[in-house]
Amino acid sequence: MRVSDIGEFALIDRLAKIVSSEHPSVLVGIGDDTAVLEGGGEMLLLATVDAQVETVHFLREAITPQQLGRRALAVNLSDIAAMGGRGSVALVSLVLPRETEVAWLEHLYQGLREEAERWGVVVVGGNMARAPEHAVIDVCVLGWISRDELLLRAGARPGDLVLVTGTLGEAAAGLRLLQRADQAPASTVLLARLLTPTPRLPEAAVIAKSKRATAMIDLSDGLSSDLLHICQESRVGVRLWAERLPVTAAVQEVAHQCGETALDLALGGGEDFELCFTAPADTAETLARTVYDETGTPVTIIGEVLPQAAGHTLVLPGGEETVLKAKGWEHFKRNL
Amino acid sequence: MRVSDIGEFALIDRLAKIVSSEHPSVLVGIGDDTAVLEGGGEMLLLATVDAQVETVHFLREAITPQQLGRRALAVNLSDIAAMGGRGSVALVSLVLPRETEVAWLEHLYQGLREEAERWGVVVVGGNMARAPEHAVIDVCVLGWISRDELLLRAGARPGDLVLVTGTLGEAAAGLRLLQRADQAPASTVLLARLLTPTPRLPEAAVIAKSKRATAMIDLSDGLSSDLLHICQESRVGVRLWAERLPVTAAVQEVAHQCGETALDLALGGGEDFELCFTAPADTAETLARTVYDETGTPVTIIGEVLPQAAGHTLVLPGGEETVLKAKGWEHFKRNL
Repeated sequence: MRVSDIGEFALIDRLAKIVSSEHPSVLVGIGDDTAVLEGGGEMLLLATVDAQVETVHFLREAITPQQLGRRALAVNLSDIAAMGGRGSVALVSLVLPRETEVAWLEHLYQGLREEAERWGVVVVGGNMARAPEHAVIDVCVLGWISRDELLLRAGARPGDLVLVTGTLGEAAAGLRLLQRADQAPASTVLLARLLTPTPRLPEAAVIAKSKRATAMIDLSDGLSSDLLHICQESRVGVRLWAERLPVTAAVQEVAHQCGETALDLALGGGEDFELCFTAPADTAETLARTVYDETGTPVTIIGEVLPQAAGHTLVLPGGEETVLKAKGWEHFKRNL
Repeated sequence: MRVSDIGEFALIDRLAKIVSSEHPSVLVGIGDDTAVLEGGGEMLLLATVDAQVETVHFLREAITPQQLGRRALAVNLSDIAAMGGRGSVALVSLVLPRETEVAWLEHLYQGLREEAERWGVVVVGGNMARAPEHAVIDVCVLGWISRDELLLRAGARPGDLVLVTGTLGEAAAGLRLLQRADQAPASTVLLARLLTPTPRLPEAAVIAKSKRATAMIDLSDGLSSDLLHICQESRVGVRLWAERLPVTAAVQEVAHQCGETALDLALGGGEDFELCFTAPADTAETLARTVYDETGTPVTIIGEVLPQAAGHTLVLPGGEETVLKAKGWEHFKRNL
């Protein structure tokens, strides 16, 4: 049996059974995007790692090294934001072919520095090794969060509402444009969403400090997959209103051009790096407004949490209900 | 200019100028094997990352997945030991081809678990991504150390003696055997030194707690390279006595068979993962004996620290003096 036969998530389950991460100092171990660890004091230590693999995550002709450096750090910071935390330091593990241009690498580091300075993160080291062929940029980020502000995937309760920051499907639309080499000026925003995503750290801080949210995740695989992770960990069901999903006209246009729907891109596109979170119905509106007031990022209520037995439902624009299925990115499966 | 033109160390210098790791919370940043960070209390946080790259660090036909799992964690723990610290948690970033056998991966994780349990380390998460071709096992280890026990490369002073744990050149001898496919029964120890190195964590703890050592490093690249790192960071010279280097008969035999000298393997072989450290002359003997008494690992005095102006000298067995040069492993240079 090969890893492509069972896919990423089944694989993680199997491996997590071999190395148990149960330990008094480990609050969240294998299976989440970020590990949460006792740090000795009131602050908890967050640790996450994410790799950018050449030909899988990036093509040298499609992204500048500076953008790649920003992206490699940003996707990790998004995992820190998912817990409500702030990033502190980054370690960068480079696996590089001998032919790599020094100038390319220096631009990569300029991108890393830009993104690090933007969020007050310090690059404190890493490792360098030779690659036989393709480059891998593996970044590990450590961060901190107050114990009483930590947000996990578990914690959503029936009666809560589901909220999402920003807009959905833009990164996926950017990818479609890139694949079609359609470089219309109007696509700048979509391409930027794909190539240099913005981790929602200020938004996460407001949400965490409010102590009103009950669960949170960042949207890396795609809304459908990621929201179902919250449902699984919280042991709840969900009803998602397709009509309420925040989708821009630009995404609708690209979807139309590609023979897809904006709903497909919003649910399954992935890499938007928005935050999806839940909060009790009576505070959700206020919380959404607070995030907008303090960060300028709109927050939309897109669904409601149900008891687990109610299952996972997607209400289509016409009112018809269908089962919400995970359509997001999964490594190893042939979904590229 | 390509990375192969300037090599690993010049490259690190260039990149360290781009991303400054100067920050009040960062005690040791880029350039060392392990970052040392403020953790909020009396304990300092240690963070290190090291990758095992297929075809560069390992060949699937030469190492079992279980050995590879042990090795991937052990080499990181050796970096933690180099500061006198103890390992706490590990994150594992896997970049894997689709054809990877699930059984191979499960054996890798069994190796990770074995090594983790041996040292009281918990695997708390990581990441999984698809590789176009070759696997990369990238491990990040976090550890802790008391502020007053931290050992760095800087700190050696003229008049100190140079000490080393265990024996030298065995991993290099094991590599020679592997390359010659000479599987004589006598080689088991040498192969184990290469494939499943032992991080010197208990020895590091004794050395750190003694508060007598002045500088320390682990021998990953090779004694000559690594000792010269101590000299550079401490701004001192050194005189190394070739005759005193702890080399076993097995290493001498392999060196002889390969037309090399045991001295070559001891100085330049690398991957022994022993600890090299310095201590004032009047306490070095006692410290060496204490480490042996408490861990069973012999410690040998192999040289003396000199003022920087005295340079770096290797005293050959006949008494002749020569310049000590870095002969250790360097990525990107054509030294494979």
